[in-house]
Amino acid sequence: MSGFDEKLDASSVASILARVARRRPRIHCLTNTVAQNVTANMLLAFGAVPSMASHPAEVRDFAAGASAILINLGTINSEGERAIPELIAVAQERRIPLVLDPVFVEHSPLRLRLVGDVLASFDVLVRGNATEMATLEPLFSLRPDTVRVTTGVVDRIETEDRALSVAHGHELMSKVTGLGCASSALVAACRAVESDPVIAAGAALTAYGIAGEIAAERAAGPGSFAVALIDALATLDPQTLQARMAGARNHGDMP
Amino acid sequence: MSGFDEKLDASSVASILARVARRRPRIHCLTNTVAQNVTANMLLAFGAVPSMASHPAEVRDFAAGASAILINLGTINSEGERAIPELIAVAQERRIPLVLDPVFVEHSPLRLRLVGDVLASFDVLVRGNATEMATLEPLFSLRPDTVRVTTGVVDRIETEDRALSVAHGHELMSKVTGLGCASSALVAACRAVESDPVIAAGAALTAYGIAGEIAAERAAGPGSFAVALIDALATLDPQTLQARMAGARNHGDMP
Amino acid sequence: MSGFDEKLDASSVASILARVARRRPRIHCLTNTVAQNVTANMLLAFGAVPSMASHPAEVRDFAAGASAILINLGTINSEGERAIPELIAVAQERRIPLVLDPVFVEHSPLRLRLVGDVLASFDVLVRGNATEMATLEPLFSLRPDTVRVTTGVVDRIETEDRALSVAHGHELMSKVTGLGCASSALVAACRAVESDPVIAAGAALTAYGIAGEIAAERAAGPGSFAVALIDALATLDPQTLQARMAGARNHGDMP
Repeated sequence: MSGFDEKLDASSVASILARVARRRPRIHCLTNTVAQNVTANMLLAFGAVPSMASHPAEVRDFAAGASAILINLGTINSEGERAIPELIAVAQERRIPLVLDPVFVEHSPLRLRLVGDVLASFDVLVRGNATEMATLEPLFSLRPDTVRVTTGVVDRIETEDRALSVAHGHELMSKVTGLGCASSALVAACRAVESDPVIAAGAALTAYGIAGEIAAERAAGPGSFAVALIDALATLDPQTLQARMAGARNHGDMP
Repeated sequence: MSGFDEKLDASSVASILARVARRRPRIHCLTNTVAQNVTANMLLAFGAVPSMASHPAEVRDFAAGASAILINLGTINSEGERAIPELIAVAQERRIPLVLDPVFVEHSPLRLRLVGDVLASFDVLVRGNATEMATLEPLFSLRPDTVRVTTGVVDRIETEDRALSVAHGHELMSKVTGLGCASSALVAACRAVESDPVIAAGAALTAYGIAGEIAAERAAGPGSFAVALIDALATLDPQTLQARMAGARNHGDMP
Repeated sequence: MSGFDEKLDASSVASILARVARRRPRIHCLTNTVAQNVTANMLLAFGAVPSMASHPAEVRDFAAGASAILINLGTINSEGERAIPELIAVAQERRIPLVLDPVFVEHSPLRLRLVGDVLASFDVLVRGNATEMATLEPLFSLRPDTVRVTTGVVDRIETEDRALSVAHGHELMSKVTGLGCASSALVAACRAVESDPVIAAGAALTAYGIAGEIAAERAAGPGSFAVALIDALATLDPQTLQARMAGARNHGDMP
């Protein structure tokens, strides 16, 4: 899509992480009950503050003061379904950045319809895996301004005319439930303090991927990996970022 | 009930585990919000894929392509209650194995009624603790073809004319929430790749119990035990299975 | 408010903990889906038994036999909202102690109304952070008999004419989601076996804070801290309690 990939430098990532830690943005998450706990813990490790109300009678009160909003369809129920238009309305009125995680959209016409509703909103960033993002291609072609973040062995951030790749992480990240969902929340946390969504997503996924690499060196399996990942994210410093980003595999413009 | 217990050999267990790891069956779980995370992580450690949608408008879409279905009543709500007949219908139409976990049925007439509804389905395997299973005795006598799995210090798998005991595990398994619920999901994962439900349940509980024994050797309490259990399950190999199964206490036909 | 703080001695705390471990009180928790798992694990580590049904058709059946009830508003939904009057009614009829955790009440008029409903009940103990408790001041002035537990760097337990401070814990406790919610459940567990609510809350928060101190010595970050906290709580003994309580910072009557 784009001719050349942008490059993200370690000082930009460190600057965004420092802003998150200093401003402590509250991220309001309508997210699935499987991933709520690990998502909240990753946000706290990042220095952000999670809130997770979903009752239609109060979700607007919670979202109104948030610095970013996450909508994750993982275990969407009727109340969550009714909360979505409330969240979209608040995001539009107050110009709050919105991140959408279309979990398992390939299995569910309901979810495909809900994604369509959210994409009709402004300033949407979508984070999914390759299967989810491929399922949404027809919708993206109607909304080419959507920022699309496809995570995998190499994470790929794309807009109509920009592209950025992140080549950090470890395969154990796919062996722990909710780690993809948590990455969407970290993207929202960076987007809360950084107006450029491509750079924000790149910073979040770089930090998360590097924390994953560190955690994998300490882990005996997916259980201890999940624990070490939270530790690594909470203690990530600019020197480590710089050293790990310098050592990353070099990627060209891969599909 | 049965005269002689069947014996399960290590190569059968290893073969079933290898099939799970190779085929990566998706297990659709309608399960309680307390145990969802640990259940998903145990399934991933086993090589299976969890999905947990419960919205009545999409639960059928999710279950239709699953290799096994788990219904756990732990925190059943109105939507989950409405999802149950959908899951039963899909299981019948597509002949998908169904595992039922009747959490705390002794406290709730609602749950007793829901178990009755599920037992009216075909090919049901019920996994519970001694209290739960005793509460269901009257229902089982109406449906003698039900495969009954009672877990405890010794796990007991019974049908009208067969019985199998599994004497692995560790008492710390009763000190961590959701580990019983997760065992039901592992039984479903083995049932997805093994048509004999007695052998499938035996393989799942043997592997899980042995992982529990290994984890207990590394743990300083229930917190580190839960982490080590996921690690041990994810890294369990045929040699370890064989060595541990050879060393197991020998059990006769205990009630 | 009070002139002099009460002092809690190690043998009282040890006695209450021993009663919890011996009687194994069941604590029925209507609590948020983010904190359910860690709450259940902390209760189990303490020797208590968690149950978490919330379906309006069965919540009364579950609460009726419980030794204490916890209402936490963290992710309250419509069904949970309908369960609250059922829980209040059972608590009144059977004189079951009730602990309320008004999570994020400062963000939500709905939650403020629900707290008002619960405070109209008898024998209520409220546990919150400083912001939550300040938001409830007008309600407390209408119900001066409410036992108010404000947790933070120093925990503060207050009634109309009594006060007790607990100066244990570690700052990592604020970096893990659900640990405040879990503390409310531990207060409920101690209240189940100790009729004096001030002493019960003091014992729970002392044990929890000391477990936090021990865990912090073993942790590399918030992930390993959460794991070590469960281990430390499960293995806390009277000697450790005594040594740590003797070494605690001394506090006067702080606001």
